[in-house]
Amino acid sequence: MHIAKRVADMREPEILKYNPLIAEAEAAGKTVYNLSIGQPDLKTPDAFLKQAAAHKGDIHAYALPEGSPELRAAAAAYYTRWGYSFSPEDILVTGGGSEALMFALNTVCDPGERVLIPEPFYSVYKDLATALSIHIDGLKTDTANGFDLPDTRTIEAAITPETRAVLITHPGNPTGKVYTEAEIRRLTDICEKHDLFLLSDEVYREFRYDGTPFESPAFDSDAGENVVILDSISKRYSACGARIGFIASANKTLIKAAKKLCDMRLAVSSSDQAGAAALLSMGLGFFDDMLAEYARRRDIVDACLREIPGIVYQKPMGAFYYMVRLPVDDADAFMRFMLTEFDEDGETVLLAPAGDFYTDGITGKSEARLAYVLGEDKLRRALTLLKHGIAAYRETSPGA
Amino acid sequence: MHIAKRVADMREPEILKYNPLIAEAEAAGKTVYNLSIGQPDLKTPDAFLKQAAAHKGDIHAYALPEGSPELRAAAAAYYTRWGYSFSPEDILVTGGGSEALMFALNTVCDPGERVLIPEPFYSVYKDLATALSIHIDGLKTDTANGFDLPDTRTIEAAITPETRAVLITHPGNPTGKVYTEAEIRRLTDICEKHDLFLLSDEVYREFRYDGTPFESPAFDSDAGENVVILDSISKRYSACGARIGFIASANKTLIKAAKKLCDMRLAVSSSDQAGAAALLSMGLGFFDDMLAEYARRRDIVDACLREIPGIVYQKPMGAFYYMVRLPVDDADAFMRFMLTEFDEDGETVLLAPAGDFYTDGITGKSEARLAYVLGEDKLRRALTLLKHGIAAYRETSPGA
Repeated sequence: MHIAKRVADMREPEILKYNPLIAEAEAAGKTVYNLSIGQPDLKTPDAFLKQAAAHKGDIHAYALPEGSPELRAAAAAYYTRWGYSFSPEDILVTGGGSEALMFALNTVCDPGERVLIPEPFYSVYKDLATALSIHIDGLKTDTANGFDLPDTRTIEAAITPETRAVLITHPGNPTGKVYTEAEIRRLTDICEKHDLFLLSDEVYREFRYDGTPFESPAFDSDAGENVVILDSISKRYSACGARIGFIASANKTLIKAAKKLCDMRLAVSSSDQAGAAALLSMGLGFFDDMLAEYARRRDIVDACLREIPGIVYQKPMGAFYYMVRLPVDDADAFMRFMLTEFDEDGETVLLAPAGDFYTDGITGKSEARLAYVLGEDKLRRALTLLKHGIAAYRETSPGA
Repeated sequence: MHIAKRVADMREPEILKYNPLIAEAEAAGKTVYNLSIGQPDLKTPDAFLKQAAAHKGDIHAYALPEGSPELRAAAAAYYTRWGYSFSPEDILVTGGGSEALMFALNTVCDPGERVLIPEPFYSVYKDLATALSIHIDGLKTDTANGFDLPDTRTIEAAITPETRAVLITHPGNPTGKVYTEAEIRRLTDICEKHDLFLLSDEVYREFRYDGTPFESPAFDSDAGENVVILDSISKRYSACGARIGFIASANKTLIKAAKKLCDMRLAVSSSDQAGAAALLSMGLGFFDDMLAEYARRRDIVDACLREIPGIVYQKPMGAFYYMVRLPVDDADAFMRFMLTEFDEDGETVLLAPAGDFYTDGITGKSEARLAYVLGEDKLRRALTLLKHGIAAYRETSPGA
């Protein structure tokens, strides 16, 4: 027997590969401030827990493949409050944002076909593409100019006859980039001109700072047929353990096709759907307190990073990540050092090395993603540990 | 934009395509006895609901990609009670049996490669294979000889250089077939000889009648490296709405590879996992009452079917389905008739046409699957409606 090439070629995601080392460190009594994954520390709203437990009748039965009518209606109402014009029929419920992404890529690309993604990008995109035998072409963007989109000529030059879609994360993970109205308009024009889908992963929609406005490509009704929104409740409601996401599009052919993938896996968790419907019905006002908290954290991280010599970064406009260029030769080696060799009073810190966020696996070798998903005191302590860890690593590693 | 061929080629599953017609019939006040899907009507054990609600702390966080340690331990203990020798590390938690199947097929087959499946088989296999660009070769079995496996020469003749695995449903859906120890031994020998994986979908493990014994290919430790168990809690605990399944194998290379697909979708529902762990800890004794109920229903269906002229079937040994050959030209047309034209005192009945359960889509044209997932009185009424419906259809349809 052999393992299929499409799975053999997948790499273990960097954001997960430290799990065994974290477990070892913790078993040895070490405290690890984990800023490597986007797992918010905020309380999941009671509405979720109450509704998820309350909806259950005697029989815990299959929901419909496309999602429960209650959740699709709640999602449509949520999108309407935002300015989208999706009806419940335009929305498919998926097992988290991951399944939304997987189904969307599967629906628009056959094996060997290509997707264009501004890089650095969320590393799981790479695993999904490999599993589906799809090739990713990266569009280089850089922290030095705020991860702005390349000019139109550069983007068009990267489109091949096999390209089927452009995929953006908006606001960006790991970049924090929020695309401007002009950038979004440029992308929708390019996709219309070249007959490409524009997949817009908007799971961080609410996470924007300093009044940065949000422009979804789906707001432009002319672009409707090309645009597919990928979404998840995980981040905005601190409900990652409920696997609830969405595919939303005005393109009925696309929704009908993706629905077949929903049929294939029968249903999404019934109780998670009930809980999610309650969350989406909470109204947009809920996010004000949450955003104030994340904005405070961003300021703390910014102030602390300023104290670390040799570090390069920009203050993010959205999401809850910093992309930082560290004064180390190899962010992966540095993180292993932090977990296995470094500690200060039994404590250490973990970021996500950024190698996986680039198509070439090289560009981001000294970069890492820092998720500000801990409260004020812990965050300050974690940043101090980072500062001292970098100094200790540079002493032990002459190449750094 | 175009839809990828692998999704365009998928057909809407027959077991789902009647949903809109059912909704219409019910909106018009009709009662539909739905024997078309394997959704048990038994109460989900309280253990699930209690544990799923109780485990939640303040933050509803991501579980580990491979599954929560509690659930993997509970699953290993359950398998041990059954006579398997799986440790928690040999088990991956999946989003229902569907994801277990999808990940297993993805892991063993590249696009264009082939899987051998005794037919008729669970129709969703076809959709999964199409979505993954995998080809299914069917091994014909027939109700006339109890769906026994073909002889070894016939099976070996169906193996091509691109064949990567044999997939069985054991006990069988839709056939009710429970493979004998000799048949299982024959399959493991063939798979070892031809270097194939043997994927054994055992979601109906507990559903066997008349003392029919169960022999898993994984019980044979010599066959261990070739065998992959696919599983789900949905049927045995009447918990279809909790999307919890398993991949279990002593083949560490296979588990390590499939784990990468788990990483890709991050996690399975946390509360469903907590509930599932409670269910699996209930002990095998729980199934006695459930089996007695299903055995009673099987006897009722058998007695009622005997009263319908021209119907061909065998009493199933396992699962909770009858495969029946109906005295109609086209089971799909008959079912549409039952939903849209037929009623008796405002009531009708629905089975699943079996065309989709065969690779050629023709063999099963007059066949249907009947799931005995309703209680005694409803089941009797449903079978009466079937009898009268067949008579009515044959009057309106001269070709029948």
